[in-house]
Amino acid sequence: MKYQFSNFSPAQFLQEYWQKKPVLIKGAFNSFDDPIDADELAGLACEAEIESRIIIKQDDKWHVEHGPFESFSHLSEQDWTLLVQAVDHVSVETAELIEPFRFIPNWRIDDVMVSFSMPGGGVGAHVDQYDVFILQGQGKRHWKVGLPQALTDKIPHPDLLQVTGFDAIIDAVLEPGDLLYIPPGCPHEGYAIEPALNYSIGFRAPDQQDLLSSFADYALQEECFKQRYADPSLTLRADNSQVSTAEIAQLRQLILSTVSDDTHFNNWLGCYLTQAKHELAIDPITPAYQSEDILEILQQVTHWHKLGGLRCLFIADNLFINGEAVSLNLAQHSFAKYLAQNQQYSSQQLNEFVQNLDNLQLLVALVNEGLIFVEDDSEF
Amino acid sequence: MKYQFSNFSPAQFLQEYWQKKPVLIKGAFNSFDDPIDADELAGLACEAEIESRIIIKQDDKWHVEHGPFESFSHLSEQDWTLLVQAVDHVSVETAELIEPFRFIPNWRIDDVMVSFSMPGGGVGAHVDQYDVFILQGQGKRHWKVGLPQALTDKIPHPDLLQVTGFDAIIDAVLEPGDLLYIPPGCPHEGYAIEPALNYSIGFRAPDQQDLLSSFADYALQEECFKQRYADPSLTLRADNSQVSTAEIAQLRQLILSTVSDDTHFNNWLGCYLTQAKHELAIDPITPAYQSEDILEILQQVTHWHKLGGLRCLFIADNLFINGEAVSLNLAQHSFAKYLAQNQQYSSQQLNEFVQNLDNLQLLVALVNEGLIFVEDDSEF
Ligand SMILES: O=C(O)CCC(=O)C(=O)O
Ligand SMILES: O=C(O)CCC(=O)C(=O)O
Ligand SMILES: [Co+2]
Ligand SMILES: [Co+2]
Repeated sequence: MKYQFSNFSPAQFLQEYWQKKPVLIKGAFNSFDDPIDADELAGLACEAEIESRIIIKQDDKWHVEHGPFESFSHLSEQDWTLLVQAVDHVSVETAELIEPFRFIPNWRIDDVMVSFSMPGGGVGAHVDQYDVFILQGQGKRHWKVGLPQALTDKIPHPDLLQVTGFDAIIDAVLEPGDLLYIPPGCPHEGYAIEPALNYSIGFRAPDQQDLLSSFADYALQEECFKQRYADPSLTLRADNSQVSTAEIAQLRQLILSTVSDDTHFNNWLGCYLTQAKHELAIDPITPAYQSEDILEILQQVTHWHKLGGLRCLFIADNLFINGEAVSLNLAQHSFAKYLAQNQQYSSQQLNEFVQNLDNLQLLVALVNEGLIFVEDDSEF
Repeated sequence: MKYQFSNFSPAQFLQEYWQKKPVLIKGAFNSFDDPIDADELAGLACEAEIESRIIIKQDDKWHVEHGPFESFSHLSEQDWTLLVQAVDHVSVETAELIEPFRFIPNWRIDDVMVSFSMPGGGVGAHVDQYDVFILQGQGKRHWKVGLPQALTDKIPHPDLLQVTGFDAIIDAVLEPGDLLYIPPGCPHEGYAIEPALNYSIGFRAPDQQDLLSSFADYALQEECFKQRYADPSLTLRADNSQVSTAEIAQLRQLILSTVSDDTHFNNWLGCYLTQAKHELAIDPITPAYQSEDILEILQQVTHWHKLGGLRCLFIADNLFINGEAVSLNLAQHSFAKYLAQNQQYSSQQLNEFVQNLDNLQLLVALVNEGLIFVEDDSEF
């Protein structure tokens, strides 16, 4: 693991801070080495599949430009930030930044946004709905963070939801390797002092509406909930305009029974939680490898990678990858766990697992889909 | 009430047949008088807002044509049926056919489909998912109905889902005033012997998927379910790829809590159950009437109608009309019940209710929206 905490205890953090209050961990990473530099980041912001924004502050006016960008020559020496989403999807090095944070369950981890700010650059004071770790890379940035408090919204530009000001409990200049944790609902703002890179390791926390809509979409797609209202015991009533309490309860029960169906609920949940929010940089293999090809490659290389941003989760004993259920037999369980729990794989380990032909087939399929790849494709 | 049962006991019917088995009630209506004739029906099938089909059988081939129609001159003297949906929405006389069936709660009643068949005409043997009463008007039609049984599907035309054959427990020639009741899942087929009108009084019975999707749509629209997953008590775990049982339960609970919210559930249900499936023939009043106008009209006419197909229901003490909640104060309850329970209103009764100014305002609004109108608009 390239990145390792030097001055940070996950167990203590969970107990005292996670989802409770913001905290600054000075020197969380010793002699921090940026996984990406400003030029590479700017390069990514020029690619069509990558979501990026530049936020510029001019006096009291805010401007927002959306990528892909063709040039950055219009930008001055100060007061702007370039933000690039889901950089872990396209930069193996940036993806490695997530590793130390996997003491939090994988399903909660979202992706890594990277910002490059010139002095004075920032997105303005705002509140997010999700937890975030903001890691300081090169340069220095002044951050303030407050506890949840009464706030006044301000929309200085249609794409920017800010707050007018807040009482801070953290007010500090971050240096390389410093780590800020901000729970949902805590106002925060950061302005660069020197040209600065910041890495935001973001989390997911679905709300009721997200969950309900996605579950309903799944039901429509799978056509699995066909039970119809029935009332064979209907009797005469005085008031034909009233939907009776018993009828309301029965209609409600018809919905509740869909959510209570374990098989469908778990299957939906696995698909839902493993869906990528930002497009994955998937590059399928054509023509597809045969089993023999994979066995040969296993002899030639030592390291394999899971595609950046690829989500692999277990719900009970069922594996889900990238929004789909993967059918497994019992003998494949430890291989599947190995795939799901790790982001990198060794040929040595894989060689043992592929003694089982179902495992070999699964590996071949994942490699061909572009979800697992070797360190350096150019070797082949 | 123009149409009244002569040979039919609703209480006994509910106990023995409703949602249990098909039954033929000979002479359910004495000397039955058709509310519409074949020419009028053909006229409706020429209107753009009205859904209609012609089904033609030629030897063993089936053809389906969709309205609106411009001419019927291509049709022969036999083997075809014209079906027109929701005729009660546009024909006050046809809407009256529903009245005797209001011993079944209003929310269950859907609409009246009318078919005109030339000798040999029919839609073929098929199964429906909803209860239906098929009332024989002019002419004679030979109907067969079976109990639910193993059936083989047959799709002789992309728009026709038929079954290959079935064992019938009813096999009879229907004459004017005869009534057939068919529960969901019972195969049936009817062929005209003489040019025949049939009236299908259909029912609604939502299935799980309908309910779930509509509830989820409501949640999206109202933005009322914003509670987000939270895990302030998170602790370290061995396997970061596993979504734990407790986490699954909490995610499920987030969905269940939306369905368990009485206020939102009831409000959604009222909107859902009062939505029209086929467009209503709404004709709003322009320029809108003032209260004085309505009070004057109340002196001039004796009868008022509820728009055909308009759905008005009570969920607990809340009134819903045409997919929307109607806010009422306590003093309006009996007026609201009067509106919901009846399809026609007398000026005498309305005059008493509109002593209350809120009631007058509600009446004015409903008349202006075109949801309640006077017998003959031309008087004004
Ligand atoms: O890096 C930035 O300027 C924005 C970071 C931030 O506000 C966040 O990740 O929540
Ligand atoms: O009138 C017809 O031909 C079709 C009637 C029918 O099958 C129904 O209403 O379910
Ligand atoms: Co933020
Ligand atoms: Co039918």
